[in-house]
Order: sequence, then C-alpha cells, then structure tokens
Amino acid sequence: MSSLHTFWRELNHLGNVISLLHWDLEVMMPKDGHAERAEQIAQLTALHHKRFTGEEFLALLDAASEKAEASEGEGRKQTLRELQVIRKERERAVCLPVDFVEKFSKAKNIAHGVWMEARKKQDFAEFSPRLSEIVEMSIEMAELYGYDRNRYDALLEGYETELNVETLDPMFQSLKNSLVPLINETKEFPNPFAKKVSTSKQKAFNHRLLPALGLHPESTRLDESTHPFSTTMGRKDMRITTRYDESDPLSSIFGVLHEAGHSLYEKGLGMVEEYPTALTSAISFGIHESQSRLWENQIGRSRAFWSHYYPQLLKDFELYHYDLPFDDLYAFVNSSSPSKIRVDADQITYNLHIILRYEIEKELISEGLPVAELSERWNAGMKELFDLEIENDAEGVLQDIHWSSGAFGYFPTYTLGNIYSAQIFHTFIEEHDSFWQEVEKEGDFSRLRNWLHEKVHKPGKLYNPEELIEKVTGERPNSEHLVKYLKTKSREFF
Amino acid sequence: MSSLHTFWRELNHLGNVISLLHWDLEVMMPKDGHAERAEQIAQLTALHHKRFTGEEFLALLDAASEKAEASEGEGRKQTLRELQVIRKERERAVCLPVDFVEKFSKAKNIAHGVWMEARKKQDFAEFSPRLSEIVEMSIEMAELYGYDRNRYDALLEGYETELNVETLDPMFQSLKNSLVPLINETKEFPNPFAKKVSTSKQKAFNHRLLPALGLHPESTRLDESTHPFSTTMGRKDMRITTRYDESDPLSSIFGVLHEAGHSLYEKGLGMVEEYPTALTSAISFGIHESQSRLWENQIGRSRAFWSHYYPQLLKDFELYHYDLPFDDLYAFVNSSSPSKIRVDADQITYNLHIILRYEIEKELISEGLPVAELSERWNAGMKELFDLEIENDAEGVLQDIHWSSGAFGYFPTYTLGNIYSAQIFHTFIEEHDSFWQEVEKEGDFSRLRNWLHEKVHKPGKLYNPEELIEKVTGERPNSEHLVKYLKTKSREFF
Repeated sequence: MSSLHTFWRELNHLGNVISLLHWDLEVMMPKDGHAERAEQIAQLTALHHKRFTGEEFLALLDAASEKAEASEGEGRKQTLRELQVIRKERERAVCLPVDFVEKFSKAKNIAHGVWMEARKKQDFAEFSPRLSEIVEMSIEMAELYGYDRNRYDALLEGYETELNVETLDPMFQSLKNSLVPLINETKEFPNPFAKKVSTSKQKAFNHRLLPALGLHPESTRLDESTHPFSTTMGRKDMRITTRYDESDPLSSIFGVLHEAGHSLYEKGLGMVEEYPTALTSAISFGIHESQSRLWENQIGRSRAFWSHYYPQLLKDFELYHYDLPFDDLYAFVNSSSPSKIRVDADQITYNLHIILRYEIEKELISEGLPVAELSERWNAGMKELFDLEIENDAEGVLQDIHWSSGAFGYFPTYTLGNIYSAQIFHTFIEEHDSFWQEVEKEGDFSRLRNWLHEKVHKPGKLYNPEELIEKVTGERPNSEHLVKYLKTKSREFF
Repeated sequence: MSSLHTFWRELNHLGNVISLLHWDLEVMMPKDGHAERAEQIAQLTALHHKRFTGEEFLALLDAASEKAEASEGEGRKQTLRELQVIRKERERAVCLPVDFVEKFSKAKNIAHGVWMEARKKQDFAEFSPRLSEIVEMSIEMAELYGYDRNRYDALLEGYETELNVETLDPMFQSLKNSLVPLINETKEFPNPFAKKVSTSKQKAFNHRLLPALGLHPESTRLDESTHPFSTTMGRKDMRITTRYDESDPLSSIFGVLHEAGHSLYEKGLGMVEEYPTALTSAISFGIHESQSRLWENQIGRSRAFWSHYYPQLLKDFELYHYDLPFDDLYAFVNSSSPSKIRVDADQITYNLHIILRYEIEKELISEGLPVAELSERWNAGMKELFDLEIENDAEGVLQDIHWSSGAFGYFPTYTLGNIYSAQIFHTFIEEHDSFWQEVEKEGDFSRLRNWLHEKVHKPGKLYNPEELIEKVTGERPNSEHLVKYLKTKSREFF
C-alpha cells in the first residue's frame, strides 16, 4: 500500500491547502483579494479532482487491491475496506464529466448571486428560473451518478453514504408524528441579558472554554466570521470560528460548542500512526453533525454544564447574580417556540423545519414538483406544521443558501445529526452515571470525550453511518431517543 | 501568447498559494501544525518546479517565441523580452537535478537546526562541519548553473540578475573607502522613551500610517510576527508584518515603513490589465530592497516625516511634549555608532557589515577559504572595520540565518538596495522641490508614490536592475548618492 498511501497523503495535503484558502478567505483575507482567491481555489480543486480520478491513481489502487486480496492476516479486512471506500468515492467522482462540473459550478455561482438579490427583494419569482436550472442540473447529476430506487438517493449519497429514502422516510415520519404534538409544549423564555456584553468579554469566556472541551491553542485557533464554521488544515491544526452578538452573548458560546464538536471529531479520526488514509476522514455529514449537536445540545443545554460555568460566566461578563439569575439563564438556553427561520429555531421545532425541506427536495428531484410552485408549497407546509403565515419569501422559501448552491440532500443530515447525537449520548450516559457530577463539580468532560473518541471518532470510515450507530448504541438509527430527550427537556419547564 | 499566459497564470496562482502557506505558518498557524505544513509547502513547491521546468511549458514557450519572432508591431519588443525572461529563468531552474534540490534542501534543514543550537551555545565549532557541507553544495550548485568569470556570480544571479563581481567589487570598494572615515562622525543618541508604550498604542499609530503610505485595508493586512516581512497572495492581497517592542516603540513603525515599501513595489508591478505575466514580478532583490529602504530611511528618518507625525505620535502614544521632545526623537531615529550586530546597525555602519559578508562569501565560494577559519576571518574583519573585539561567535559569525539557509549571494542585495534607494530618491527630489513641504504639512506622499510607481514599479522585469537604475536616474548604479546622503545626515547632528 505504500505508494498508494504516498499518493493519498498528497491528495490529503491538497485538500488541506484548499481548506486553508477557504478559511483565510472567510477569516483573514482583505476583501479585494476575492476574485483572485476564487481562481486559486478553482485551480487547486480541479487539480485535486484530476489526480483523484486519474489513471495513475487507478493503477495504484488496482495494484493495492490485488495485493490485499492475496494477503492474509489481521490487517486484511481493514485494508480491503479502505480500498473499497476509495474505489467507491473515486467511481462516484468519475461519473461527472469535467464539462458538466464546470457548467454546474457556473450555474451555481450565478444562482447564488440571484438568490441574494431575490432574498433582499423578498421575491421568489426572480430566483425561480435560476433555481429551475439548478434543479434540472441536480436531476441530471443524479442520473449521471445512477441509483437503484429513488433518484434523490443519488444526491443523498453525497452527504450520507448508504442512506436512502426507503430508510429515511419512516424515520422522519415517525419523528414528525412525535414532534408535532410536542409543539404545544414549547415554551418561550426571554433573553435574560439586560445589558450588552462586549465581544472581548465573550472572547475571554470562549478562550477558557475551548481547552476545557479538549481543544488547545497549540493545535486550535478560534476566530470570528459571519457564519460559524470549523475546518481542518492538518492533523494538528484545527480551526473554528464563531460570531459575536453583544445583545445575545450566549450565541457565540453555542457557536463554539457546536464547532468544537466538529473539530473534536476531525481531530480524533482514525489512529494517528496510520494518518492520513481513506479511513481517517469523516464518514458522513450526519455523523459529523451528531458530534457538533451533542456538544451544543446534550452538553450545552444541560443543567450540569451551566451550573459549572455560571460563576465563570458572571466573572468574565462582569455581572452579578441579580443581573443574571441562574434560573433565567438556564430557561433561556432551553427556550422553545415555533418560528419561521430555521437557524433561529429551537431543538424541537428545528427538526420539523428540516423534515419540510426533505419532503420538498424529494418532490423537486423525484416527483416533478415545478419550481414555480415552490413558494406556495413552502407556505402551505409552514401553515400545516406551525400554523404560521409566511408574509414574504425572504422569511420563507428564500431563507436558506443551500438550494442556490445545488446542495440537495444536505438538509436531512442536520436532523440525522440530532437523531444520532441523542442516541449516542443515551448510550454514553447509561454507562457513565457519574458524568453529570463530574461536569457540574469539575467541568470535566474527559470521560465523554474519550468515549466518543474510542467509539465514534477512531473508526473514521471503517463503518457506514448506520453500522456505526448500531455498533456504538446496539440499535439501528431511530428517532426514539431524540424524542425522549426533547420530551424530558420540555417537561423540565412545565 | 494566450495559452502561455493561461499556464503562467496558473503558475502564479500556485506561487501565491505557497506564499499563503508561509504567511499563515508565521502569523496564524497553531504551532503543532508545523510538520504537516512543511510537507504541504514542499509538495506545492515541487509541483511548481515540475510545471515550470516541464515539457508542456517548454512547448508553449517555443510556440510563442516562433509567433513573436514572426510578428511585427509595437508589442513585439515587450513580448520578446517577456519570453526571454521566462526562458532564462526556466533554463536556470532546469540546471538543478531534482535529486540535488532534495539533498540540498535536507542539508539546509539540518544545518538550520544546528545553527540555532550553536548560536545558543555561542560555539561556531559545532556549526562548522554543517556549514562546510552547505558551502560545498553551494559550490556544486554554482557549477551546475555555470558562470563566465567568477563562480560566485552564478549564486549572485539568483538574487540580482545580470550583476557580477566585476561590477560589484569596485562599487563596494568605493563605498567602503567613503564609509570607513565616516565612522568617526557617527553619533549615538539615547532612546527618548522613558516609559514603555503598549503594543495596542503602537498598533493604533501603525494602522493610521499604512493607508497614508498608500496601503488600504481592502487590500492589505498588517499583522505581527517574530521577524517582520511582506508577502503577496494576489494582485489585491498584500500582507505585511512587524514586531512590537514596548521599550522601543519606534521599531514597529520602522518595520511598517520598510515592509510597506516592499508591498508598494509588489502592488505596482506592471500594468494591471496584463497581470500576471513574467514581467509583472520583481526584477531583483536589490530593486525590491531599494523600495523598502527608501521608505524606511529617506522618508522614515527625515525631519519632514517626523514633523508631520510628531503630534499624532504623541496622541496615539498618550505622551506630552515634555515626555518626548521632538529634537530627542528626531536625533534618536538618526542615531549611529559601530555595533557588532548587523540588524541593529545604523544607516552608515550597516553597509560595512554587508561588505564584510560579501567579501567572506566570495572567499568561501571562489577562493577556497576553509569554513574552519571563518570565525577568525570574521573577527579580524570586525576589528579592522570597527575596532570591535568579538567576544563570542553568537555576536559574530553565528549572528545571521543566511548561511545556514545556503543563501550565498543574498547579503549584497541589502547594500545594493541602499545604493539604489539613495540614487533613485536623489533623482526624485531634484525634480520635486515641494515634496518635503507636502509631507510636513499634509503627510502627503502621493507625488513620490506615483513617481515610483511609474518609474520603478511598472516596468517590472522589463529591464535588468542596472538598466532600470540608468533609465530612472540617468546614471549607472553608483554609491555616490548614498555617501552624499549619509554625510549630510551625519553632519546634521554635528
């Protein structure tokens, strides 16, 4: 495998360099650098694609496969899995002709600009023709990839490998059935911060929190960007960002918790000694998201977490108990109520936002829903789910960036992340009954971190998401633990 | 030329990406990212070399040359120059076998580590065997490149194209003859800052200064690093760094002035419409350095500059006139006295430090001086020039990084920069007698900036350094203007 691994290592470096180009663009680059940076990214991305899909790599792959098939011993199974993963990803990448990739990329660029304008003008009609193009090309792409049953499966595969509509439909239906009645139990609590909290005070807290979560400055950066994200420039170079709102100082902390979860996953992928191989990368968007959601929700909205950090928060924010009573703080981080905007949604209603998008995506890709009817379809869905009237498309069908970027199949992974995180955490907490005490008393998350590392991070791409969840939790993925968790949460405040 | 230009554009992007990898390493990267970053840089550097020296590029070059030779019209001359520049650089790059480049790179890496240790221990003997290897390999490299008269010329070419010992020897000899007597006129003035000035106050001043110099935040970053440097990630993405010393707050300002000069040069190279071509890059290290030295010295040590900025400095540093009398400030920025360390040297003695290094480099590369005798040779030189006794090698022969990095031929460009800058500025000021008034009254440097842009920056690689200086100043490069400038300066304080 040695020459294959050398080749892979170079592909991996190239990928990390592309990550740096993106990170720098979002976080550091002077704004006039934009046009040239776009060309740099396009060039290296094309180079990566060419190397990955080229004959040289195929020859190395074939040689390694032949050798592995003939081999015996304990490493054989893992090697075969690694080769299978590479081959599958490579074959998928080969499906798209370079012409198509370029054409699609241009269409997405244009659609993105039109979407931004249309959203500003609150006018879906302006975006509609462009989105039609994107949907048509997404359908063309799905046909190029090929699929067994549902055309949408071909797109889903790009985000959540080996998952399909046949599995997702009942899982999401069951979740929907449980969540809709829960809407009546949502309860909204007011922002308990009477005064603004400066960015620098929030930063002080966040830079204290990050090492406690297991991310140290020797190998992690925390910066600021318009939308929080996490990225990886190397095995020991993880970077996360958050955004600061002085009127809602907790939002930066939740940004850190969420992105730290992503980074801990990336940091823990595979065994260090064998890094980087095809197995030492994320298996799916859903599993990735499960790690961010777990730290954001199961930990970040827990009583133990805030009991521990409450004194520190008061200190860093220069507040007194009477400025910010604990109960008000804890209620606020668990506040819930139906809303029009997905990114502002609480833990309960969030998943219903996603399920609506999932249903619409299937209809667009597989069932012939015309884009022209999308706005009505959306608004009817919101009425049905939340009894909310959408007044204009900006707070409706135009709110998310995903469709203008042709990212059909992405949305479901957000709720999969929630489902997986609840299921994984349930298993963990069953086995570790002193955990909440350790958090509350010591702010010590090491038990959870180590367990996640062993169970979820280390396997990398060794198992498919479904297999992984079953290995970790003993059950196939199901939404019961999420529902139970959400019910418990909402009843805590009644 | 179109396909050649596309290829060149890609090479240029690759070069800019490598610059970003370096910048990020120095300024942003978490320290544990080091090992992997080194591999990323090595990989992209090798890729750049392969593309630049490959057959595909040669074919494009040959086709373009044929077409250009057959063409007529006004662009012909410039196109032929462009092709000549590319061909010459490519042929030079082809001279070194990949094996040699790798072997040399490893030796330099090792030598660099040993040098750092030896400097710490103040023990040249420890470094000597490693440096011998570097010298031997530098000699081998010079032989691979080839040369007409002096072997050292082959190395000089890497930093200052078309310049050789035959031209440099009399220029430096004449400068030395003039400077040695000037040492008696050096005068040291004390640091006028009684109290420390915080980094944030210095930053406030520097971030105000940068746009006044013509570098705006839309296309420029200013950061902090161990050693100040400037770099370019794109036509509209220039980045400079400086270092902050609270006891010597002017040092960060001089860092900014110096690096801003480099960035203004890079920003102004060639016509925007034709960027990037082989002509829109720096012609030489000496010309590059002339632009940084001009802003650092001719501007940054002028009475007009400090007359204008004195009130602003007091304000930003929160000082009163009596804390920092103007005359003390102005004297301090022009203080001079012989010293052992090059980077701390004043404008007069600095060039003698360089000339000593130049003489030693020639002896090592062309005249068989054994590395084992280097320490004595150095100390004798310092005694002769400045009557200074070198107590240990750390303040002597071990002080600079350059030789451990195999950068023989680099040092002379520092003094060439000083020579060029004085000569260029002399021409400018002869033609613009209201300039100092504009600086003192308005802090307006636009006349100088525009003139440098037209005369020095825009030509890019159209002319060799010597030709460029002659075009701009009407004289061949000579040290007379530098000597005149230094004499005037030193007499201002007697």
